[in-house]
Amino acid sequence: MYFASDNACPVHPQVMQALNAANSGYAPSYGGDEIMDRVRAQIRDIFEAPEAAVYLVATGTAANVLSLACLTRPWDAVYCHELAHIQMDEAGAPEFYTAGVKLKPVAGADAKMTPDTLKQALSTVDHGSVHSVQNGALSLTNVTELGTTYSVAEITALSGIAKQAGMKVHLDGARFANALVALGCSAAEMTWKAGVDVVSFGGTKNGLMGVEAVVIFDPRLAWEFELRRKRGAHLFSKHRYLSAQMEAYLSDGLWLELARHSNGMAAVLAEAISALPGGSLAHPVEANMVFANWPASGHQAAKTAGAQFHHWPHGESCEGKAPDTPVCARLVTSWSTTMEDLDAFLKLAAR
Amino acid sequence: MYFASDNACPVHPQVMQALNAANSGYAPSYGGDEIMDRVRAQIRDIFEAPEAAVYLVATGTAANVLSLACLTRPWDAVYCHELAHIQMDEAGAPEFYTAGVKLKPVAGADAKMTPDTLKQALSTVDHGSVHSVQNGALSLTNVTELGTTYSVAEITALSGIAKQAGMKVHLDGARFANALVALGCSAAEMTWKAGVDVVSFGGTKNGLMGVEAVVIFDPRLAWEFELRRKRGAHLFSKHRYLSAQMEAYLSDGLWLELARHSNGMAAVLAEAISALPGGSLAHPVEANMVFANWPASGHQAAKTAGAQFHHWPHGESCEGKAPDTPVCARLVTSWSTTMEDLDAFLKLAAR
Amino acid sequence: MYFASDNACPVHPQVMQALNAANSGYAPSYGGDEIMDRVRAQIRDIFEAPEAAVYLVATGTAANVLSLACLTRPWDAVYCHELAHIQMDEAGAPEFYTAGVKLKPVAGADAKMTPDTLKQALSTVDHGSVHSVQNGALSLTNVTELGTTYSVAEITALSGIAKQAGMKVHLDGARFANALVALGCSAAEMTWKAGVDVVSFGGTKNGLMGVEAVVIFDPRLAWEFELRRKRGAHLFSKHRYLSAQMEAYLSDGLWLELARHSNGMAAVLAEAISALPGGSLAHPVEANMVFANWPASGHQAAKTAGAQFHHWPHGESCEGKAPDTPVCARLVTSWSTTMEDLDAFLKLAAR
Amino acid sequence: MYFASDNACPVHPQVMQALNAANSGYAPSYGGDEIMDRVRAQIRDIFEAPEAAVYLVATGTAANVLSLACLTRPWDAVYCHELAHIQMDEAGAPEFYTAGVKLKPVAGADAKMTPDTLKQALSTVDHGSVHSVQNGALSLTNVTELGTTYSVAEITALSGIAKQAGMKVHLDGARFANALVALGCSAAEMTWKAGVDVVSFGGTKNGLMGVEAVVIFDPRLAWEFELRRKRGAHLFSKHRYLSAQMEAYLSDGLWLELARHSNGMAAVLAEAISALPGGSLAHPVEANMVFANWPASGHQAAKTAGAQFHHWPHGESCEGKAPDTPVCARLVTSWSTTMEDLDAFLKLAAR
Repeated sequence: MYFASDNACPVHPQVMQALNAANSGYAPSYGGDEIMDRVRAQIRDIFEAPEAAVYLVATGTAANVLSLACLTRPWDAVYCHELAHIQMDEAGAPEFYTAGVKLKPVAGADAKMTPDTLKQALSTVDHGSVHSVQNGALSLTNVTELGTTYSVAEITALSGIAKQAGMKVHLDGARFANALVALGCSAAEMTWKAGVDVVSFGGTKNGLMGVEAVVIFDPRLAWEFELRRKRGAHLFSKHRYLSAQMEAYLSDGLWLELARHSNGMAAVLAEAISALPGGSLAHPVEANMVFANWPASGHQAAKTAGAQFHHWPHGESCEGKAPDTPVCARLVTSWSTTMEDLDAFLKLAAR
Repeated sequence: MYFASDNACPVHPQVMQALNAANSGYAPSYGGDEIMDRVRAQIRDIFEAPEAAVYLVATGTAANVLSLACLTRPWDAVYCHELAHIQMDEAGAPEFYTAGVKLKPVAGADAKMTPDTLKQALSTVDHGSVHSVQNGALSLTNVTELGTTYSVAEITALSGIAKQAGMKVHLDGARFANALVALGCSAAEMTWKAGVDVVSFGGTKNGLMGVEAVVIFDPRLAWEFELRRKRGAHLFSKHRYLSAQMEAYLSDGLWLELARHSNGMAAVLAEAISALPGGSLAHPVEANMVFANWPASGHQAAKTAGAQFHHWPHGESCEGKAPDTPVCARLVTSWSTTMEDLDAFLKLAAR
Repeated sequence: MYFASDNACPVHPQVMQALNAANSGYAPSYGGDEIMDRVRAQIRDIFEAPEAAVYLVATGTAANVLSLACLTRPWDAVYCHELAHIQMDEAGAPEFYTAGVKLKPVAGADAKMTPDTLKQALSTVDHGSVHSVQNGALSLTNVTELGTTYSVAEITALSGIAKQAGMKVHLDGARFANALVALGCSAAEMTWKAGVDVVSFGGTKNGLMGVEAVVIFDPRLAWEFELRRKRGAHLFSKHRYLSAQMEAYLSDGLWLELARHSNGMAAVLAEAISALPGGSLAHPVEANMVFANWPASGHQAAKTAGAQFHHWPHGESCEGKAPDTPVCARLVTSWSTTMEDLDAFLKLAAR
Repeated sequence: MYFASDNACPVHPQVMQALNAANSGYAPSYGGDEIMDRVRAQIRDIFEAPEAAVYLVATGTAANVLSLACLTRPWDAVYCHELAHIQMDEAGAPEFYTAGVKLKPVAGADAKMTPDTLKQALSTVDHGSVHSVQNGALSLTNVTELGTTYSVAEITALSGIAKQAGMKVHLDGARFANALVALGCSAAEMTWKAGVDVVSFGGTKNGLMGVEAVVIFDPRLAWEFELRRKRGAHLFSKHRYLSAQMEAYLSDGLWLELARHSNGMAAVLAEAISALPGGSLAHPVEANMVFANWPASGHQAAKTAGAQFHHWPHGESCEGKAPDTPVCARLVTSWSTTMEDLDAFLKLAAR
């Protein structure tokens, strides 16, 4: 019964097997390995982007901040939702890697900015005046931090506003696969066809040990990315072990299959909790995260039995609450969540 | 009829005379000049802080950002009002000098944060968690960007919250003298006695050519400040010309006299515009800035006659408005504003 | 016949096995895993430093630059040998992570600085003057970039000079194990007992997939390191897979055994090449790197047969040289080098 | 008898008069003043560069480091002489403003690099390899730190090497006027016609209170410079007082006249000291700095009588030396040096 995060789950067996298989003999270092050649081709194929530059790093934060650094200059603003990972959970890594951009938090329900809230944020920056930061980049997150998704039309609309304001668009896809299967569109439709310039293409939360790809649709940024990655100490000598994970992930649709599974598990949770007396969803459940309320007694029962999850928001608690007071929690499912987990958990939550 | 800014006014004649007087023979460079010894003593005396470290720089932004850099580490957050100069008008200089702190904008009417809005902003930072930026410093501005002032009690309350959250307190005193005469308290009461650690003590807007002092109450920060100033390229070889301006400014109470004059001019403006048909104040007028509404016809008449001022907020305009529509403007008075200026302007505004 | 680098060899089977074993169920992320508790204890034990702060990162550059950032302020100088990895091979990562320290290259034969060359470099910095960078840290590399080692006495002497100049001491131990078995001393003797404050304790070049430890003897630097690691995007969510590698590495003396093997292979190479007609060593061979000259014909024969190694220095070549002209090469052995490799290679080199 | 530095001399009376004249009424701030329009035209005219972007800052370090930041990316190397001001005397300001470039010190007698020493330094950087810093910019200083000058032919040769290595060229002209009158060429010949891209055009050391121009021959860098200047806190609100100094400086050839005077004073010093028993020049005297040896007794007599100058190199002293031991000193003349000063000094030096 582990719903605290999708980054605490194990590595998928097929990925582990690929790592074992890659562990033979010498291989060129720093990304010169043959597996990486295949990964590059796989990703270009998936994104229908034959010229895209493709790189691997080992953490999602690295993918995000290296991408943003390539899209901005130090005096720029980056617009993101006020709950965005880059704003709330990266301890200033974006500011560090970009040499000081200013993140402009954008409001919006369910962790989604809207054309209106984005325009409102844009109005606080006097682009073109030397006294102000300048418009640099828009960063969207899909799946969002509250488990919702941006549709292709929504991404297109926000990108359009960004482009008109002179900005590039970054997509934080830490849960890219989960968003993709939720939307039922192609990777190209969710990204460059909708105006996205650079994608953090997550793998770690969906079954890898620690690999994220960065997909850059304009290959003229490639060399700068390589220098920034090296300078950020994120260029791996034994790179083949990153490549091998990603190759396994992308082969035979494993990445989509795992995302479908975790999204499905979340749907089950959402439906069951909604049906509880006093149960309700705090945000729409569109991928693999459930933000839901149910009575404190159920929280306590689950916690006591060893279930792991976070109350929401940060600081919320079921302690000392009357048994039937609804309390909110954040439940994250993953490729390794099982129906048995759910059954056990839901029985406790229902107490 | 110039009300666009107090940074476009000339240098006060007594300051100019001091510059001329200083221009004789050789003098030690980089702050080793004798005038600086006297300035240091003057400022320590004014602030009743015999151990304070005192430095001069030539721009208000330099004073602010060097101060903030000494009070923070790169992974910190600096809390400031959402309209603060450091947030809106310094083009990312704070982020540059601090190597990437995150400015957390705090809400509040009349450009003033309150204990509640500050606490609200603090709640968005998970101090102590490695995934979050940390509490670094609080930066208050007195006079605020909307011409209001923080009372000593208000400063004390906000500083107290900051201290409890593990932070240091910076005061942006670009209009320090205007605030001080408005509050009628001592420099010590408005600063260290109220919990302020470092002050940007402005001079440029109040009659100097380009000098601001930084007053650091904890002398252990002195050497770091000196290195940061040098490294920021703000250490002047012919430093005596900064010292001479500041000495003249502080002598015989000139600084307070000039501030009293400009505050008085603003009070006259405020009263007269309030009394106009359709006239009203947009924010309380407590120092040398007036944010007020009056009919578009009066705006047009004043503009046509060459009066200089900005509409407010940025982007507002009197063009194409019906003659009696109230339009808001920002009027800044200075040591060189004359009663004749006011009379001429008010006659036009009344049309 | 692969002698190009020790970072292209595979992962040792025992390490791979540990990774497979760790891949079960959920585990706390970000270093909260139980394996890390054991690793911390192992390393404190090895270094006889029960209070040391111990962290894992995935690249040697990350270990180096995060360490240096914790030991310096942005206006400092870091003294290192002019061939040091941090000076020559990290693309400015030290400057990035430290927010701009100046690396002062120190001369010295065989990639080793001496008390005299260090003092010479120190004399170019006017420590205490605001116009100069300040003394920040000394960074030593053991094994050096030319395959030589600093003895405990040499480290002690250089650290002593550094300490007297107000500096902290960093040890780049990318090949720490190789140095240790070469010196035949304890880890404590080679580090804190000799004046070292922070160690980059390498694992990747000696059989891991990608893990380096940072050992900080003064635990007051721990929190700063954690924030810098996070901010550098080097905090791994699925941290257990770093821990598992390091645990296997340190268990039953595997790390020392592997280093002994690769050092031994280098000794064989060195002796055999020295014995060739026209063969000679360019630098003393003290660990797992051989810099040696032998006739161009032997180079060509080896290259033709597929042997991989670099000529030395960068840009050197055996192309177009008379067959008996001695040409210099850099040969690196590793835990996976076999006697068969050596035999085959040496036969070709002898042609 | 003040020969310690040209940055301790007073402001030239014509410049002071221009400041007094500018002190009337209101003027647009931040460089929008009319005087700046005229200064821009003057400088474009002097440099025969009608499209050049021209900006004023208040310190030489600001001019240098803002220029270098516009010519480089953070992962670049900047090549400069090992005695260059940016390397020795700016406390890491270049590293700060460029977000971490690596300064590569180039050797060479008399503070001048040569094609050979520059090529030697270039050979230590593996441009094009992701593991290395990249070639960013060459920074030359004319007049050099040892009072010598680069001829137009020398600048052209070094610029040519830089261009071939993919670099831009910066000229630190803190003593630009002194170099120009020494070479007897035009400003265009000494700069863009010889391959220079950006010039720090000094004024402070030659009679101004604190103004340096930056002349950027490629106007596409203009906006970036403006943003960097603002962000560096070097954009002056009361900018007219910078403009007024520079206008006076450039009018009626004042700048050249003052430089001719100070160069002439140095020539007199050099000749007289050379003629002393035991007297000799340490470096060729080509502008307004004299590095010369003469007996310790003469040093002591001059010091005792209050003459101010520095021994050379840093740390040298005449104390405790036998009276006839030659000791080296650095004597800097300025626009305000008088023949009476020289006579008095030389009499003492001859003791």
